[in-house]
Amino acid sequence: MDAERTEIGTIGEFGLIAEITKGLETTREETILGVGDDAAILNLKQGHHTVLSTDMLCEGIHFDLSYSPLKHLGYKAIVVNLSDICAMNATPTQVVVGLALSNRFSVEAVKALYDGMRLACTRYGVDLVGGDTTSSKSGLALSVTAVGQVHPDKVTRRGGAKAGDLLVVSGELGGAYMGLQILEREKLVFKEAPGAQPELDGHEELLERQLKPEARLDVVEELAKLELLPSAMIDISDGLASEALHIGAQSECGVRLYEEKIPMAEKMYDTAREFNLDPTMCALSGGEDYELLFTVPQDRFEDIRNHPMFSIVGHLTEDQDDRTLITRNGMETELKAQGWDGLAEDS
Amino acid sequence: MDAERTEIGTIGEFGLIAEITKGLETTREETILGVGDDAAILNLKQGHHTVLSTDMLCEGIHFDLSYSPLKHLGYKAIVVNLSDICAMNATPTQVVVGLALSNRFSVEAVKALYDGMRLACTRYGVDLVGGDTTSSKSGLALSVTAVGQVHPDKVTRRGGAKAGDLLVVSGELGGAYMGLQILEREKLVFKEAPGAQPELDGHEELLERQLKPEARLDVVEELAKLELLPSAMIDISDGLASEALHIGAQSECGVRLYEEKIPMAEKMYDTAREFNLDPTMCALSGGEDYELLFTVPQDRFEDIRNHPMFSIVGHLTEDQDDRTLITRNGMETELKAQGWDGLAEDS
Repeated sequence: MDAERTEIGTIGEFGLIAEITKGLETTREETILGVGDDAAILNLKQGHHTVLSTDMLCEGIHFDLSYSPLKHLGYKAIVVNLSDICAMNATPTQVVVGLALSNRFSVEAVKALYDGMRLACTRYGVDLVGGDTTSSKSGLALSVTAVGQVHPDKVTRRGGAKAGDLLVVSGELGGAYMGLQILEREKLVFKEAPGAQPELDGHEELLERQLKPEARLDVVEELAKLELLPSAMIDISDGLASEALHIGAQSECGVRLYEEKIPMAEKMYDTAREFNLDPTMCALSGGEDYELLFTVPQDRFEDIRNHPMFSIVGHLTEDQDDRTLITRNGMETELKAQGWDGLAEDS
Repeated sequence: MDAERTEIGTIGEFGLIAEITKGLETTREETILGVGDDAAILNLKQGHHTVLSTDMLCEGIHFDLSYSPLKHLGYKAIVVNLSDICAMNATPTQVVVGLALSNRFSVEAVKALYDGMRLACTRYGVDLVGGDTTSSKSGLALSVTAVGQVHPDKVTRRGGAKAGDLLVVSGELGGAYMGLQILEREKLVFKEAPGAQPELDGHEELLERQLKPEARLDVVEELAKLELLPSAMIDISDGLASEALHIGAQSECGVRLYEEKIPMAEKMYDTAREFNLDPTMCALSGGEDYELLFTVPQDRFEDIRNHPMFSIVGHLTEDQDDRTLITRNGMETELKAQGWDGLAEDS
């Protein structure tokens, strides 16, 4: 498949590291030293807290290389970590990357992966300051650790919301999950008829949500502009239902979500119907949207209600056992965190 | 093999995380929030620099579970990262851990791994503040990222040494590599005669160097006590030769090493002979000793010469192309970074 294929063995570990760090520059003043020593050296902002988050992505579990281009995968690996930093209301500043790969990957493949990581770093103004590249017996595993900074008064945890607080989400939900469904369908078609061309036209928006998601640093910046400090915040990696319940549990509150308020893109809605999937279920439990879910006191209602970035999807209640989804027709049903497995059984 | 075996599937991802984080406490005042949110929150010391290092360990490449107990493996995974922090002359403060494992691992296995990680954290006064635990299609991969702090005037890079500086190493070398040879031999014996009991008695010291190494935080503390700031420092993960050449290259100096000065434990020396291996080669290229190699100006000779922790093994020279090993019989030969592969071919 590669136009050009250089075996990693021909340039060795040090050669590979030289290739992938070539022209790698740091741009933040807090970065004193990037790659090339035993550790990176950072001079983080005085008076700020440091936030630290790590994620591991494994081939066959978190991604499928038969439809994930390596450049996109690199981009996504960085973004999902930056999303965690944003969920603390912090500004991401640096990342370090661990990479384990078998000898079926070429130098060009590793470069494509790093190109994607660099692109994400540039896009978010983050420095790639260190890494570890090693062999694996099989498959590809990526580990990213991100560092961010936040003023101690501005940090948002999962706990901290109060009964009566509004539950607010950025963007639209369910798209990443529908993108995955399209890719899985085309993979199946291809398996049955290897010559078939994938039918991906018209689905670019959903595919991009799955393959090349973005972290909502713009939301963190907008909240600062609005002088709006969420009482709690989390990013949506497992699905709206699961994350709302996390905020509820850690804030010792109940959660009430309104189905009709859940923001969904028309494209996602129509495609879900085409796949005989319930769009609400996709939004509630599909996951990987990397939108931010947060709570604000009711007196900030006016700041949020007509803001194009945000949707008010529910509120918190006193009763910790209250986990309710109010459906379009006004019925109350238990809000459940199904996660991917549960969803797969349903669909 | 497990006395008790609980499948991870029976308790699920959240159940597993609850198990491994049970009773996990943070002890450092800089740790504001540990596990349980989108990111850890740290209040690092004002006026200090932050150092950050990451490592990835993969089954079948970095460890062999047929002879690495999981608790030891967890301990080692933390220690090898803390060693990188120590190499910056910094004090390690926090770690985050990524763990990818297939369903052949039980809950008890994961707990053993975490027990080892916790033990290392307690031993070094470091907080485990976050992690990510996921499935893998095959095998076990561990990623550890460590954070440390150091006063800006005290940080030691690989570059910075001057011609004439003494090259100093802590502890004794070659033991970890010999420990590995013993384990590999017993594995072979066991393969050929599965009932055979491994002959490990009397080799505890070498096995411990391989399976449960230590980071030389005590050396960092001793250097501070001696008010001795190395001009360059690196930890020995790939072998003395390779690391000495790194210091030389990044300091733009030549390197001269004296074979007779290389510190070796008697046990390592005798066992190498028994295996028909050259003890000097084991010390130069065996790796995984996690001792510290550093340079100091000649006027600190008296502080080092009789210090029980340290051995002066050579010095740096003006000529960048000078890479010399002076053998016991006074011959000069080129100092080469053979690494593990080179060594394996020799033996």
